[in-house]
Amino acid sequence: MELKEIERLAEREYPNTVKWRRHFHIYPELSFQEVQTPGYIAQFLRELGLDVREGVGGRGVVGKLIVDESLPTVALRADFDALPIQDEKEASYKSTVPGVMHACGHDAHTAIVMTAAKILTEQKDTLKGNVVFIFQHAEEVDPGGAIQMIRDGCLDGVDAIFGQHVSSSLDVGTIGVRYGIATAMPDDFTVTINGRGSHASKPHVAIDPVAAAISFCNQMQYIVTRRSDPMENVVLSITMFNGGTQHNVIPDKVVVGGTIRTFNQETQAVMIAELNRCLKGLAAITGITYDLDYLRGYPPVVNEETTTRMVHELASKASKVTDVKLLSPELGGEDFSYYLQRVKGTFFNTGVRNPNFKADYPHHHSKFDIDEHGMINAVSLLVGAVYNYCEEAEHES
Amino acid sequence: MELKEIERLAEREYPNTVKWRRHFHIYPELSFQEVQTPGYIAQFLRELGLDVREGVGGRGVVGKLIVDESLPTVALRADFDALPIQDEKEASYKSTVPGVMHACGHDAHTAIVMTAAKILTEQKDTLKGNVVFIFQHAEEVDPGGAIQMIRDGCLDGVDAIFGQHVSSSLDVGTIGVRYGIATAMPDDFTVTINGRGSHASKPHVAIDPVAAAISFCNQMQYIVTRRSDPMENVVLSITMFNGGTQHNVIPDKVVVGGTIRTFNQETQAVMIAELNRCLKGLAAITGITYDLDYLRGYPPVVNEETTTRMVHELASKASKVTDVKLLSPELGGEDFSYYLQRVKGTFFNTGVRNPNFKADYPHHHSKFDIDEHGMINAVSLLVGAVYNYCEEAEHES
Amino acid sequence: MELKEIERLAEREYPNTVKWRRHFHIYPELSFQEVQTPGYIAQFLRELGLDVREGVGGRGVVGKLIVDESLPTVALRADFDALPIQDEKEASYKSTVPGVMHACGHDAHTAIVMTAAKILTEQKDTLKGNVVFIFQHAEEVDPGGAIQMIRDGCLDGVDAIFGQHVSSSLDVGTIGVRYGIATAMPDDFTVTINGRGSHASKPHVAIDPVAAAISFCNQMQYIVTRRSDPMENVVLSITMFNGGTQHNVIPDKVVVGGTIRTFNQETQAVMIAELNRCLKGLAAITGITYDLDYLRGYPPVVNEETTTRMVHELASKASKVTDVKLLSPELGGEDFSYYLQRVKGTFFNTGVRNPNFKADYPHHHSKFDIDEHGMINAVSLLVGAVYNYCEEAEHES
Amino acid sequence: MELKEIERLAEREYPNTVKWRRHFHIYPELSFQEVQTPGYIAQFLRELGLDVREGVGGRGVVGKLIVDESLPTVALRADFDALPIQDEKEASYKSTVPGVMHACGHDAHTAIVMTAAKILTEQKDTLKGNVVFIFQHAEEVDPGGAIQMIRDGCLDGVDAIFGQHVSSSLDVGTIGVRYGIATAMPDDFTVTINGRGSHASKPHVAIDPVAAAISFCNQMQYIVTRRSDPMENVVLSITMFNGGTQHNVIPDKVVVGGTIRTFNQETQAVMIAELNRCLKGLAAITGITYDLDYLRGYPPVVNEETTTRMVHELASKASKVTDVKLLSPELGGEDFSYYLQRVKGTFFNTGVRNPNFKADYPHHHSKFDIDEHGMINAVSLLVGAVYNYCEEAEHES
Repeated sequence: MELKEIERLAEREYPNTVKWRRHFHIYPELSFQEVQTPGYIAQFLRELGLDVREGVGGRGVVGKLIVDESLPTVALRADFDALPIQDEKEASYKSTVPGVMHACGHDAHTAIVMTAAKILTEQKDTLKGNVVFIFQHAEEVDPGGAIQMIRDGCLDGVDAIFGQHVSSSLDVGTIGVRYGIATAMPDDFTVTINGRGSHASKPHVAIDPVAAAISFCNQMQYIVTRRSDPMENVVLSITMFNGGTQHNVIPDKVVVGGTIRTFNQETQAVMIAELNRCLKGLAAITGITYDLDYLRGYPPVVNEETTTRMVHELASKASKVTDVKLLSPELGGEDFSYYLQRVKGTFFNTGVRNPNFKADYPHHHSKFDIDEHGMINAVSLLVGAVYNYCEEAEHES
Repeated sequence: MELKEIERLAEREYPNTVKWRRHFHIYPELSFQEVQTPGYIAQFLRELGLDVREGVGGRGVVGKLIVDESLPTVALRADFDALPIQDEKEASYKSTVPGVMHACGHDAHTAIVMTAAKILTEQKDTLKGNVVFIFQHAEEVDPGGAIQMIRDGCLDGVDAIFGQHVSSSLDVGTIGVRYGIATAMPDDFTVTINGRGSHASKPHVAIDPVAAAISFCNQMQYIVTRRSDPMENVVLSITMFNGGTQHNVIPDKVVVGGTIRTFNQETQAVMIAELNRCLKGLAAITGITYDLDYLRGYPPVVNEETTTRMVHELASKASKVTDVKLLSPELGGEDFSYYLQRVKGTFFNTGVRNPNFKADYPHHHSKFDIDEHGMINAVSLLVGAVYNYCEEAEHES
Repeated sequence: MELKEIERLAEREYPNTVKWRRHFHIYPELSFQEVQTPGYIAQFLRELGLDVREGVGGRGVVGKLIVDESLPTVALRADFDALPIQDEKEASYKSTVPGVMHACGHDAHTAIVMTAAKILTEQKDTLKGNVVFIFQHAEEVDPGGAIQMIRDGCLDGVDAIFGQHVSSSLDVGTIGVRYGIATAMPDDFTVTINGRGSHASKPHVAIDPVAAAISFCNQMQYIVTRRSDPMENVVLSITMFNGGTQHNVIPDKVVVGGTIRTFNQETQAVMIAELNRCLKGLAAITGITYDLDYLRGYPPVVNEETTTRMVHELASKASKVTDVKLLSPELGGEDFSYYLQRVKGTFFNTGVRNPNFKADYPHHHSKFDIDEHGMINAVSLLVGAVYNYCEEAEHES
Repeated sequence: MELKEIERLAEREYPNTVKWRRHFHIYPELSFQEVQTPGYIAQFLRELGLDVREGVGGRGVVGKLIVDESLPTVALRADFDALPIQDEKEASYKSTVPGVMHACGHDAHTAIVMTAAKILTEQKDTLKGNVVFIFQHAEEVDPGGAIQMIRDGCLDGVDAIFGQHVSSSLDVGTIGVRYGIATAMPDDFTVTINGRGSHASKPHVAIDPVAAAISFCNQMQYIVTRRSDPMENVVLSITMFNGGTQHNVIPDKVVVGGTIRTFNQETQAVMIAELNRCLKGLAAITGITYDLDYLRGYPPVVNEETTTRMVHELASKASKVTDVKLLSPELGGEDFSYYLQRVKGTFFNTGVRNPNFKADYPHHHSKFDIDEHGMINAVSLLVGAVYNYCEEAEHES
């Protein structure tokens, strides 16, 4: 099918895409706690007449559109979990769940692939391949749903996979593609710093875990600035620091956590080694003890060249895509990487930024929102990629 | 009555003192939330036959032993609130209330004055004065119960007041007295640091309130070491630092709190001014905004000379007191100061430390406990002080 | 001339190359203070029979080998200044000048281009172009000698330029080439922090510039870790911190200096703005005043593609080159950039690392040394580049 | 002799006192380098006809006024060394020695005791005792001249000693006295932090001693604020931080120094232990090595009660003394303590502050100056103390 025709269909389905996205937005569910969302998706896929499997890898949903098992099989993947953030924007589709919010755009991802599923199913006669629609739970929380769904067979028989992420860094109309390494290794750490509490007026009889944690956080800056190679990209963010409940009581302990993101194992190893040295040295200085919980994050997303070029060319031709950007790697993590470790494919970014719609807050912000029109492009490119892939496979064989 | 006889009575009542103290220990109540505790006290005082008033200044209890209204009136004061600390010691009388604990010894204070009330009431025929038993709520939390009870008349007609605090810094058998300034001005501060959250991999688009709070806490050390006169005693403890819930989200804000304790207004003014300068400067550096809530604490306890000497001499003569220490001022705060701003009196310390009983943790520690035998000395000295004061008053008149 | 023949000649001249390099190594001269070095070079060039000009742009030396003015002209550039570092290695050719040392390899650069000059002069009959040998003073100290020599005409008539730097990061035998941006903008800053001195026991009557400078240096780490985009490469090194001479005197001032290196003007602008914010905020916090001297460094070296490919291909064919590496940009600065702003050319790296010869200390280290055999490759490639450039020019015309 | 008469003589000699003080001010000499100053003093004492010994304990001068060896002997002590500070005030008597200055007032001390020597010698017929005039070198630099002079016999036969220090904290006209502990233990430390240098753009291959020293200095603040008892007075000042000479070179080492001053050995021991822990821990974190040179300072000055009362009463009666202050202990050190470890005596402060004469800079400031009129009081009190001591001794015997 021609891209032009695909774009027309994506445009036609747009009201559905919006409806579904807003539905999920109103009823967000946290990672590994998704119940209503996968149920809703599964129900939809069944109504389309697909072969549906629920509870894949725990909470995932897989729908299969089988045209001819001898033909190639392409997967489209969406993730559907939300974040523990309070929705603070004003909108009719604002989250109704206190403290939970689709602040990363996974609601849109799901609506986009649902729309793609509807179009492809309705146009199956024109399709020279099969399609697997992977709706994944728990992308936000390591170990993530991807690896679980893969182990539960979601990629069985799949030849290539396409996915995308809406992006608040790209204006609506822009598509971002990246050849090769696209995301970092997003490791998380949690350090419990155990001191010894006392009355706040007697610090010398305490081992002050707040003071030690401050020194730790401060000293960690030097790991980034002095111990890692400045030509390597790395980010270390301390995002959690919690301890103490009383003005006049030095607490017994403090918990500090954050993320370390690197692009290669050498830099990752330096960061981990220095983190440990830092804690050990501060324990010697202050008398605290500590427990370090270091969780290595997803591997980097590495986009395969031919499938990336496919999306790249589609985007360049699409009538509603006004700009195509070659992206630099990002320090974010994404468990789409697990799929790409097994089958070729690519993961692109869809611009949804639009200040006129107040859609210009960063991801994970409590006022995050998207210009929903961007979803049309994502639908067109995903559907287009399925057609292209199948056609090229036909030519090659 | 002779001190020797008083000590004999205190010793005789010791089982009661222990029973009451342990009762309160098992059922602690937080400041300004006391219900069962004042009820128990009031019931006891009524059974002694005293003139009892409940709800004084909110939740306080006052019992009056009237011998002859033309005679002098002496007050004994105990406080009865507990702390939001989880009891982690092992003992049959461990707190049964999750997260609440008598970790400062107010349970003992109350049991001591109840015992004194019992003895004095039973010996009222030998007494040349009246006694007011003040059981105060909410000593731990500024503005405290003392000022409320005073405004509600608890000191009306009172000529002198005596109080004491059990001390984990003094061995059981030791009594500590202090002439003049005994405690600091225990100010509390709470700073809300408002930044702008983002995904943890994009710190440059955020205004990181965790990083700013770390810089703030670190910079505050220099206020103590560089801006205040090293010949003045001051303590600045940051006891609370709370912000962030997600490894991959830089939060929007962090709340930092603690205490600043000084002995004179000049040093207090320096600390407050520098705290404000520090916040203002860091706002300029980092882009955060902030809200500072600064709460000036209780005034210093200033012990009057003649009443202090009275306790000093009693302690020197008491058979169960093995050592009397002249104390230095302490950086703790105590709203006994409000009573002493109105009538003369003194506040002494009763040693309850005993490593053999695991009673060697600092106040406000989750394993804080006391050697209960120390309570006998406190009872003897408070009762003795009442007798002495009345006798001296008689001689003077 | 064939590369093989060039390599043979470079090998033959190796004893001379070593002799000259060691001569300069024994008698190093600081930037903008070079006297003996340019004299020695000029004398040598005159003996070769070249057209020599001294004092170019101050202290530079230019020798011209004119074959035919209608033919293209290629420049080879070496720099010859040393560093204010005490030579602490053991070697017969150790620096004899206290506190001055060729710790960056400019001695080798000069010996290499002298050798190239000897070979090219002796082989001038085979040469279809002219050669300008540029010996530059003061590369280490901004504003550097390059811009001065250019203003004094050293590039007049030059069509292309080649230069190289020995590299302690590359094993001897390896050649590093880089297409496009190769070096950073190496800005320097010097901050004088003015406080108010006092006796060391009275910090509260002083404005302690040491404490303020420590806070400044510490806070600057956050600029790197929080304010600059972690996907941009930047280094901030505080390399100088000087203040105070007496244990018991808080000094009046402290001088802190260092370098900020970035690859693009946006990041550079962020760093400069944040540096200023940091100083301004700390002045508000501490009461210090400051003078900031910010010196923007050399522009980036941008290697032109065709000349870079020329060296790349020569290196790939050279018999003594065991490995050719495509380099990443480096955070070092190099005023070769000024030549490249005016004529096309390239700047490559010559491996001289060899732990067996104790030649494995980083540049600017007091024990820095090179495996001198690496110089043969540099000579071969520079001479080869001259031949190649002239031949290609002939073909094109 | 009556105090009134003594004051008259002090007043009469004032022009001499000023002349001598200014002479020393113009020609200051550093500790342990004094040559002209002791020569000038010795010459003066010889002209008075005293028994003079030079080179006492190295560079000290002792003059003896012997009236009758069977009578008591009183010592008056002055110190005469200057500081390595550049004189930046404007005055006719400004220092002529670059970088050396009497910024602590020892010039005045010497002129005062010279004046006392002149008066006492001229009035020797009225004196019932002997006087030893001790002019001490090197008070500013530990180990100081006092202990050397004592070992060389300057206190032999001495029964009591008096000394004083001019004070920029006290207005001219004020005398400060202190019973008991008057000064701190002024320990000095010097830490050499050895890292490994590199080019400034490659911090990860270096061990950055500047960064480590910053962390060290910053972490030391917590020793004061968290590890020492806030009820003990302590000052820790980092007064020297020197390392690095090149913007683009991370240096090999940095030297950091300062002072730690405490009043008792327990706090001193805490500070030393924590300093060592801090260095050890930072070495583990950063990879630096270090050399710590810790020099325990003078013992505290402990003023004896009867001699202190003597000065106290004289000051209360003196006509030109407008105020007598009971001083708190000071964190400064003073090797007068060594004399007081051997004989009784006292050390008082003489007010010389006067903003109208620009005499209001702190000691050790480059614009330090005194209101010279204060010297009259110091002369009167020292001479008066000699008379009083001898008279009391006569009455007692």
